[in-house]
Amino acid sequence: MKKRKICVVVLGRANYGRIKSVLQAIKEHPDTELQLVVGASALLERYGTVVDLIRQDGFEPNATVHMIIEGENPTTMAKSTGLGLLELPTIFMNLEPDVVSTIADRFETIATAIAATYMNIPLAHVQGGEITGSIDESVRHAVTKLAHIHFPATKLSGERIIKMGEDPRRVFVTGDPAMDIIANISLELEDDIFEKYGGVGPMLDLNEPYLLAVQHPVTTEYDDAFRQINETLMAIYELKLQTIWLWPNVDAGSDKVSKGIRVFREKYDPDFIHFFKNFSVEDYARVMHNSTCVVGNSSSAIREGSFLGVPAANIGTRQSGRERGKNVMDVDYDREEIKDAILRQIDNGKYERQYIYGDGKAGKRIADILAKCDLSIRKNLSF
Amino acid sequence: MKKRKICVVVLGRANYGRIKSVLQAIKEHPDTELQLVVGASALLERYGTVVDLIRQDGFEPNATVHMIIEGENPTTMAKSTGLGLLELPTIFMNLEPDVVSTIADRFETIATAIAATYMNIPLAHVQGGEITGSIDESVRHAVTKLAHIHFPATKLSGERIIKMGEDPRRVFVTGDPAMDIIANISLELEDDIFEKYGGVGPMLDLNEPYLLAVQHPVTTEYDDAFRQINETLMAIYELKLQTIWLWPNVDAGSDKVSKGIRVFREKYDPDFIHFFKNFSVEDYARVMHNSTCVVGNSSSAIREGSFLGVPAANIGTRQSGRERGKNVMDVDYDREEIKDAILRQIDNGKYERQYIYGDGKAGKRIADILAKCDLSIRKNLSF
Amino acid sequence: MKKRKICVVVLGRANYGRIKSVLQAIKEHPDTELQLVVGASALLERYGTVVDLIRQDGFEPNATVHMIIEGENPTTMAKSTGLGLLELPTIFMNLEPDVVSTIADRFETIATAIAATYMNIPLAHVQGGEITGSIDESVRHAVTKLAHIHFPATKLSGERIIKMGEDPRRVFVTGDPAMDIIANISLELEDDIFEKYGGVGPMLDLNEPYLLAVQHPVTTEYDDAFRQINETLMAIYELKLQTIWLWPNVDAGSDKVSKGIRVFREKYDPDFIHFFKNFSVEDYARVMHNSTCVVGNSSSAIREGSFLGVPAANIGTRQSGRERGKNVMDVDYDREEIKDAILRQIDNGKYERQYIYGDGKAGKRIADILAKCDLSIRKNLSF
Amino acid sequence: MKKRKICVVVLGRANYGRIKSVLQAIKEHPDTELQLVVGASALLERYGTVVDLIRQDGFEPNATVHMIIEGENPTTMAKSTGLGLLELPTIFMNLEPDVVSTIADRFETIATAIAATYMNIPLAHVQGGEITGSIDESVRHAVTKLAHIHFPATKLSGERIIKMGEDPRRVFVTGDPAMDIIANISLELEDDIFEKYGGVGPMLDLNEPYLLAVQHPVTTEYDDAFRQINETLMAIYELKLQTIWLWPNVDAGSDKVSKGIRVFREKYDPDFIHFFKNFSVEDYARVMHNSTCVVGNSSSAIREGSFLGVPAANIGTRQSGRERGKNVMDVDYDREEIKDAILRQIDNGKYERQYIYGDGKAGKRIADILAKCDLSIRKNLSF
Repeated sequence: MKKRKICVVVLGRANYGRIKSVLQAIKEHPDTELQLVVGASALLERYGTVVDLIRQDGFEPNATVHMIIEGENPTTMAKSTGLGLLELPTIFMNLEPDVVSTIADRFETIATAIAATYMNIPLAHVQGGEITGSIDESVRHAVTKLAHIHFPATKLSGERIIKMGEDPRRVFVTGDPAMDIIANISLELEDDIFEKYGGVGPMLDLNEPYLLAVQHPVTTEYDDAFRQINETLMAIYELKLQTIWLWPNVDAGSDKVSKGIRVFREKYDPDFIHFFKNFSVEDYARVMHNSTCVVGNSSSAIREGSFLGVPAANIGTRQSGRERGKNVMDVDYDREEIKDAILRQIDNGKYERQYIYGDGKAGKRIADILAKCDLSIRKNLSF
Repeated sequence: MKKRKICVVVLGRANYGRIKSVLQAIKEHPDTELQLVVGASALLERYGTVVDLIRQDGFEPNATVHMIIEGENPTTMAKSTGLGLLELPTIFMNLEPDVVSTIADRFETIATAIAATYMNIPLAHVQGGEITGSIDESVRHAVTKLAHIHFPATKLSGERIIKMGEDPRRVFVTGDPAMDIIANISLELEDDIFEKYGGVGPMLDLNEPYLLAVQHPVTTEYDDAFRQINETLMAIYELKLQTIWLWPNVDAGSDKVSKGIRVFREKYDPDFIHFFKNFSVEDYARVMHNSTCVVGNSSSAIREGSFLGVPAANIGTRQSGRERGKNVMDVDYDREEIKDAILRQIDNGKYERQYIYGDGKAGKRIADILAKCDLSIRKNLSF
Repeated sequence: MKKRKICVVVLGRANYGRIKSVLQAIKEHPDTELQLVVGASALLERYGTVVDLIRQDGFEPNATVHMIIEGENPTTMAKSTGLGLLELPTIFMNLEPDVVSTIADRFETIATAIAATYMNIPLAHVQGGEITGSIDESVRHAVTKLAHIHFPATKLSGERIIKMGEDPRRVFVTGDPAMDIIANISLELEDDIFEKYGGVGPMLDLNEPYLLAVQHPVTTEYDDAFRQINETLMAIYELKLQTIWLWPNVDAGSDKVSKGIRVFREKYDPDFIHFFKNFSVEDYARVMHNSTCVVGNSSSAIREGSFLGVPAANIGTRQSGRERGKNVMDVDYDREEIKDAILRQIDNGKYERQYIYGDGKAGKRIADILAKCDLSIRKNLSF
Repeated sequence: MKKRKICVVVLGRANYGRIKSVLQAIKEHPDTELQLVVGASALLERYGTVVDLIRQDGFEPNATVHMIIEGENPTTMAKSTGLGLLELPTIFMNLEPDVVSTIADRFETIATAIAATYMNIPLAHVQGGEITGSIDESVRHAVTKLAHIHFPATKLSGERIIKMGEDPRRVFVTGDPAMDIIANISLELEDDIFEKYGGVGPMLDLNEPYLLAVQHPVTTEYDDAFRQINETLMAIYELKLQTIWLWPNVDAGSDKVSKGIRVFREKYDPDFIHFFKNFSVEDYARVMHNSTCVVGNSSSAIREGSFLGVPAANIGTRQSGRERGKNVMDVDYDREEIKDAILRQIDNGKYERQYIYGDGKAGKRIADILAKCDLSIRKNLSF
C-alpha cells in the first residue's frame, strides 16, 4: 500500500511546539510519509529562526516560504496572509499531499486552510473549537468551517465543532499534542539556557525563584499595545523579581510590544530580567515548570500550565473564554492588579496536575487517524 | 453626524445581482456613504465586463482590482484569492471604511472577509447560513465565522448562523436583495436582447417558448466538468428547443465548461441555441421569467426561480442542500434525466410565487441596519 | 567534477522555439545538468499548452509557475511580471542553479533576470543587443544590463552589447538557436497538421499556395490593436488566398487582437482561413518554409524567414530596427499596402538563404560556453 | 493648460534625501502637480519611519505601499521587488500620472521603472549613468534602459548614458538634487540631535571632534557582511573616538550588519558611540559637515562629501568606480587600514569644496524640464 503523504505547515514558534509530537508520530508511522513546509516567522532571525530548531530535531523541510511583509500592523498582517496564499498553492502543487494539516489559529493559518481546500486537498485541523478573545477566535472557527478532519484538544471543543455543523464522525478529541512533550521528558532544567540561547540582559540564578513572562499583542487592541506591555513591565520592575522574558510573536502590534520592551530596557536597565527570543519546545516546558508564576497572556500558561500545575497570572482579553484549570488567575492591564496576582500565586505555590488539555498521547492518536481515516472532501453538515 | 462609510466589494456578475438593491439603498440613505470596490471577473471582458454595467447603473467604483490568475484550475483559484488578499488591504487602508460588506460565497469572497477582519474593520455578510454543495459551502460558513453582522436571506439560514455560535443580536433575516429587483420592475421582455447583448448563435423568437440554461463547473468535481456540461448540451440538442445559454463564472473548471461549449458548437452548430456572456440584473430576471424552464445548476433557478414561479431542472450536486420551493426538479448529470425533467416542467407550466428568499425589501432593510447597528469588532460567541 | 546546473526559464511559445536546441545541448553535455522552469502563457490552454509540447519533446519541467493575471492590458502585464518575480525566487532557492538563462525580450523575461541577479546567481541572456520597436526593446536592453553572460544572435547585436558597457570577454556571438532546428530537420510538411493541431476553420489544401499570418499586438500602441488586426484580416479577406493564421501571444492588447479575429470570423466566416493556436517548433518552420509569404509582425518572418528565404510582408512598427535580409518588405497598418506587398512577394517567390541569424549550431556553442565560462557575478563595465 | 501630473516614488531614506528638492520644485512649479508615492523601508519604524519626516516637510503621500518581505536575504530582496511590482500598477492606474520619476539605484527602484514603462507611462530617472560596485550597478543601468528621460548628476554620467544608446536629446545633466539642500541651509548644528532623534548609546559632545559612520551591506558580498561591519566597529573601538553611527538600509545582509552592531554593543558597550536610525536630510548634512571624517561605504561621503569638503574613509567595494573628489581615501575591510585612513584624514582636515555632483540648483532644473519636455514613450536608440 502506498503511504499517505501528510503535509504539515508550520508557520511560527508556537505552531511548532503544538505539532512536534505529531510530526514525530507521522514520521514513524508505517503508513504515513511526512511532508513539512516551514514559513512565516519560523524563518526569521528576530523570532529565533525556529527552522533551525526544527532541523536540529531531525525534520528537514520539503519547502520553506518567506511570507511576512514588514510593518507589523493590521494591514501587513492581512497582506502577509495573502502572500502566503499566493505561495502555498505552488508548493502543494509540487508536493501533491494526500492531506494537509494546519494548526490552531494564528493569522497565517488560514492561508494554509484556503490553499488546501480550494485545491481539493483534505484539510486536517489541530486544536479547533476553543474559545478565546482576539482575531484568533475568528481565524480558528473559520478554519474549522474549511477543514474536513478535526483534532480538538478538549471534549468541550469537540462539542462546539459539532454544534457548528461539522460531521461528528470526523471530529476526534485527541488532546493537545503540546502535552505529549511535557509528559515524556525530564522537567529538570539541566542545561545552561543562558549559554544555549543567548538573549540579552543579566544572568539569573535559576535555582532561586523566578517568573516567566510572555506577552503578545492583542491584534484587536492594536493601538493599546504599547501601554499594555508597559503595565506588565512596570509591575515586574516594581516587584524586583528575577524574570525570564520571552519575546512576542510577529503580529500586528508586536513592534509596539518590542518597542515597549526596548524603551523600558534603555530607561531602567533592570538587572533581574533576561530576555530570550526562543527556546526549544522542551526547554520552554522546563523553564515554565520551574518558574514560580507565569505572567502575561500566552495560552501556554493555561494549557501547559494546567498540565504542569504552574501558577499563572493571565493578563487582559487574549485568553478570555479559554477553558482553564485552577492554576490561572485573571487580571486586567493594570500594574497593581498584576503585582497582586503574582504575589498571591507565588504564595499559593504549585497546583495539582490537570488533564483538561490532554494526557500526552495526542501525537500518536492523530497520526493513527490520519493514516486510515476517510479522506473525502465532501462535507456533510448537520445542524 | 458623520455618515458611515459602507464599503461593498463586488467580485463577479452574480455578486452584483445579489447586492445591487443594497448599493442603491446605501447610496440613498441619509446616514450612509457608499464605497464601491469592483474586482476579479467583474473586470474581465470574457465575463461580460460587469464593471461597465455597474457604471451604467450609476455606481462609480472607488477602486478596481485585477486579481484573477489565469489557469482556471484549483491552484490558480487559490492563488487568485491570495492575490486579492494582497491587494484589498491597500485599498481598505486608503478608503478607511466603517464597515465592509461581502456577498455570499464565491471563492474570492473570503479575501474580502479576511482583509477586513484582520484590519479590525467590522464585516457584514449578506446571504450566509445556506446549505449547498461545492467549495462554496465551506467558503460561506468560514466567512460567517469571520463576519460581525449577518444578513441571511431566509429564516432557516439565520437559525443555522446562530447555531454556529454567532450572536443572535447581530443576525438579521432580511431576505435576499436579489428579490428586490424582481419585485420592482416590469417583467416584460421589451428590449431586443440580441441587439443589446450580442453573444453568438442564431436569433431566437422569444415570443415562442424557450429554455434558459446556466451551468457552472463544480469546483470539487473539477475533473468531470467537461463530461457534465456535455450531458446538458446533448440533452438540449436532442430536444431541439430554443435556448438562451448564459456563459459560466470564472472558476476552476470553467475552461472545461467553455471548451465543452465550443467543441459542441463546432461539431453541431445548433440553430436554436444563442450564447450570451451576461445580462443586466433586470434583463436576466426578465429572461428567466419568460422562459418555460431554467436548466443547469445556477442558484438563481432556486432563488429567483421560487419568487417568479419558473420551473427549473436543477442538475447535479452544486445546489444540494439549498432550501427550495416546489418549482425545482433535481436531476443527475445524465442527458436522459435532464430531457425528462425539462419536458415534465414545460408540461407543468408556471408555479405559484413563493417568498422563501424574501419579499423584495431586503436592500432597504440592510442599509437601515448598517446605518445604525453596533459596529463593535468583538465577537461574543455562544454555543 | 560536479556538473554545472543550468536553469532555463521558458515563459511562452516563442521562448521555447528560441531555446529548444539549447535545452537539448545542455541535456546532452557531459558537464551540465538541465533545470527547466516553465510558466506564464506556456501553461495556458488558450495559448496551446506549450508545456505539453515541451514534455513530448522529452523535457520534464522541474517547476511550473502560473503568473498571468487576467486582463491583458498594460496594468496586468506589469502585475503579472510582479507575480513572476514573487514566485521565481522561491523556485531558484529550491533548485540552487549555478547559472540561470533567460531568453530574448518578452515582458515576463525581466522577472527571471531580476530574480536571478538579486539572488547573486549568474545570468545568461540569449538574443540580446537587437533593435526593434515596442516595449520589447526596453526589456531586452534592461536584461542585458542585468546579465553577466551574453549570447547575441548576430555580430551587430554583439557590438551593441559591448557599446552599452558590457565586458567583451563575456559577449559570445553564437547565432540564434532557433536556426538550429530549421537547419537540422526535413522541411517537408508530411503530417496532416489539421488533424494534429485542430484549430478552427476549414481544411486547406497545403499543396496549393498559402499564406502564413501571425500578428501580435504592439503593447505601446495598445489602443489601436483592434484596428491594426482588422486591416490585416481585411487585406487577406479581399485577396481570398488560402491562409494559415496563428493565434497571438498573451500581451497587452491580445484580447483586442483575439476579439478582432472573432468578430471577423462571425461576420465573414471565410472558407479559406484556418486558425491555429500553436505548432511544434519544427512544424512551424515547415509551415513557414512552404508558405508563399509570411504576413504580420512576427520576428520569425525576419529571423527564420531570412534563413529559409521565405518572402515576408512585415506590418507596422513591431520589428522596426531589426536587422533583416532581402526577404522582408515593410508596410504600414493599411489593407491596400498589405495586399500590394503580399502580391509582390508572391510574384517574387523564394529568396536565397541568408545566415544573418546563425548557421544552425548555436545551441551546442551556448552549452559549451556555459559549461566552462567564468561565472563571476561581478560586472566590469567599460565605456 | 492642464498641469502635468508628475508622480515621484520614494522607497527609502536615501531616496528621499536625493529627491527632496525636486519634490519642492515640482510642488511650486505653476505647470506641474506633484503626486507622491511612499513605500518600502520608508514606511518602517526600524528604518526611522521616513514617511513621517516627509509629512513634516509638507508632502502628503497620495499612496503608501508596504512591500518589504522580511528576511533581508537575497531571496526576499527579489520577492520584495516583485511585491512592489504587483502593487504599483494599481496605484498608477488610479493616479494616472503623466510622468513617473524614479531615483538612483536601490533594488526596489526597478519595480517603479517596470510598472511605469509597461503601463506606457513615460519614466524619468534621476542619477543614472554612474559607476559603482554591487547590484546597484546593474539596477541603475537597467533602469536607464527602461527610462525615457534622464537626469544624471555629472557630465561623465550623462556621457555614459548616451554611450548606452539613449537619445542625447533626452539626457539632461542637472547635478544631484541632494546638493541643493546642502547649498541652501545653514550648516551649523543648532538643534540637540540627541533629544530630537533619540537613538541608543551615550550623549556625545559635538563641539569636540567626532566621526560619522555609515556602513551598508554589499548585497553581492552577502555572506561576508558580518565580518565586514565588525572590522569597522573594531577600528573605531580601538581608536576610542567619539562617533555618530547611522543604522544601515534594509538590504540583503542588513540583518547581519544590525546583528554585528548589536553583538558589538553587548560585548563592548562603548561609551563614545551613539547609534541613530535616521536624520532629516538637512540634519544629516549638518552632522556630516561638522564631522572630522566620514567612515564606511555610504555614497554620501563621496557625493555630499565632495561638496562639503569633508574627509572620508571609504571602505570596500560598494563605491568602486564612482566619480570622486580629493576628499576620499579608499581602504579595504581591514581594521588597521581603516584606523590609519581615519587618522590621516583627521590630520589633513577639511578639503576644498568641489562641484562634481552639482551646484545646488538641480531640483528646479528637473522640474522645469519635466514641465515642458517631450513625453513620447517611443525610444530612439542610437549606437
